[in-house]
Amino acid sequence: MPSEKQILDELRARYGKARVRGLRLGIGDDAALLRSRAGCELVVTTDLFLEQVHFRREWTSARNAGSKAAARALSDIAAMGAIPRFVFLSLAVPRRLSGRWLEEFFRGALALSRRFAVALAGGDLASSPDRVVLDVVGVGEVERGRALLRSGARPGDAIFVTGTLGLARLGLEFLRRRAIRFAPLRAALRAHLTPSPRCSVGRYLVRRQLATAAIDLSDGLSTDLHHLCEESGVGASIDASRIPIATIPADVRDRFGLDPLNLALHGGEDYELLFTVPRAKASRVPRLILGVSLTRIGEVTRERDVMLVAPSDRNLRLRPLGFDHFR
Amino acid sequence: MPSEKQILDELRARYGKARVRGLRLGIGDDAALLRSRAGCELVVTTDLFLEQVHFRREWTSARNAGSKAAARALSDIAAMGAIPRFVFLSLAVPRRLSGRWLEEFFRGALALSRRFAVALAGGDLASSPDRVVLDVVGVGEVERGRALLRSGARPGDAIFVTGTLGLARLGLEFLRRRAIRFAPLRAALRAHLTPSPRCSVGRYLVRRQLATAAIDLSDGLSTDLHHLCEESGVGASIDASRIPIATIPADVRDRFGLDPLNLALHGGEDYELLFTVPRAKASRVPRLILGVSLTRIGEVTRERDVMLVAPSDRNLRLRPLGFDHFR
Repeated sequence: MPSEKQILDELRARYGKARVRGLRLGIGDDAALLRSRAGCELVVTTDLFLEQVHFRREWTSARNAGSKAAARALSDIAAMGAIPRFVFLSLAVPRRLSGRWLEEFFRGALALSRRFAVALAGGDLASSPDRVVLDVVGVGEVERGRALLRSGARPGDAIFVTGTLGLARLGLEFLRRRAIRFAPLRAALRAHLTPSPRCSVGRYLVRRQLATAAIDLSDGLSTDLHHLCEESGVGASIDASRIPIATIPADVRDRFGLDPLNLALHGGEDYELLFTVPRAKASRVPRLILGVSLTRIGEVTRERDVMLVAPSDRNLRLRPLGFDHFR
Repeated sequence: MPSEKQILDELRARYGKARVRGLRLGIGDDAALLRSRAGCELVVTTDLFLEQVHFRREWTSARNAGSKAAARALSDIAAMGAIPRFVFLSLAVPRRLSGRWLEEFFRGALALSRRFAVALAGGDLASSPDRVVLDVVGVGEVERGRALLRSGARPGDAIFVTGTLGLARLGLEFLRRRAIRFAPLRAALRAHLTPSPRCSVGRYLVRRQLATAAIDLSDGLSTDLHHLCEESGVGASIDASRIPIATIPADVRDRFGLDPLNLALHGGEDYELLFTVPRAKASRVPRLILGVSLTRIGEVTRERDVMLVAPSDRNLRLRPLGFDHFR
């Protein structure tokens, strides 16, 4: 079993050597030293990723765990419209996992990070009695005053989402039921195990100055839309028929008792972006950005309620039934 | 039991309202937005603080846990000579602790932070199946190019430490043995449960441009001195008789089989600073900075070994026997 120092030396030799713009000092000191560009603000986010709470080691490989942990942090940065720059990985693992598992974990985290030109700038390493414990810190950069906040939505704004909703939860349901041989689920498993942060969309919205507010969909559309509305002091009306819902073949749906709309509304972990655009600019939002679809699903209202216009044309109050750690 | 949202709303109402210089956006969005001052670099550190690994809930109150978690992050910032500015607290607790324990934890963390004019800028909150899991991110600011790195020590430099070494470990040993009624241990318990980061010393060294290198003593003098020497490509010679060792009455020492020098060398968690100063400037280092003592204990050598000049005048090789998570 390698010592803490051997593990850190190895990580540093492998990932800490490249000279990265803005990173004056990375792995190996008491802290990292960052320099932000003139005219920019730094975006800082921190996300726990705990075995048994956020992922299961039974069906999440070390590499997927690393990749998803990094993706979660980058998704928050994408939702601010910022350029992701650095990650810090604080990780505690049971001693028996300190060899190969750890190596694969870092491979996964660093592969995802490199896809977005993000550098590993530091972290922490500890032993854990039984389960893997992880916190990922993400640091990004955004032009001063241009970050996409949750609080900027105004009545009349059009509401958009990226990608397909409910897929990640569908993947999780298959894994839970150990039913991963089913046909239509490769995309669902991928959505759950290796989500892709929507950084390009966030940057597009900032550069074109299209969006008034944005949030990433981690807890589920219903809950995250409530977060955005509350911060903006507005309500919303969502057209159920327009939500880009994951397709599930009827036999799979019946067999597992899964309702696609339900998964899309409350499933969580899609890591898609939800954003608002002034009505006059809504037509300028493209249908696709680098392969990611953008769909208009409703509008911001003055009345504080969040309503769902259901297929039957009845308006239902949409309650935040997504993920809550303490409910 | 409060919901996740209720807890976050409460925290935000209590700690997130003050307008803080440099913090454009704190708790409540996808990420925080920070602005660093012109001519400054940002120092970023992240430290796990896990129940059963870094602390025991049997003898650490929620308030002390919060205070110590924040102190650990600030100690890293102090060791860089930076001004601490923000903390982020990522916390997972068992559901039954989500009320009063959580409240007291934040009280402790925020009281310590406020003592150093540090603001809570964000974090994450999750449930945990059994144990408290915590990661603290600290952000500080330091004048460009002036941070105290581990890598700057040069042969001939004098080596200094702050405070008294071994006290924190002594406190831990008393707690482990449930012997907290012993007389000389108030200072030891305080050192273990509520360490105080040496931010003023770090800033003094930067402002006067006295130090060539610095590290905080978290793993123990022997291990941390090795870290510093390795990063600087040097060795060191420490005079055992000069180390500011915690005093332990002889009867306590015998009864518990504790060796004060051993605790000082390998005990860990003192959160004092170890720093090096060019010989010509060594006399300018004061004995005391705001009540914290500074003691010269040895010098940096060209030979890469770390030697201990023992009381018997024999020179011993000092092995890094401080804390290693995987040994």
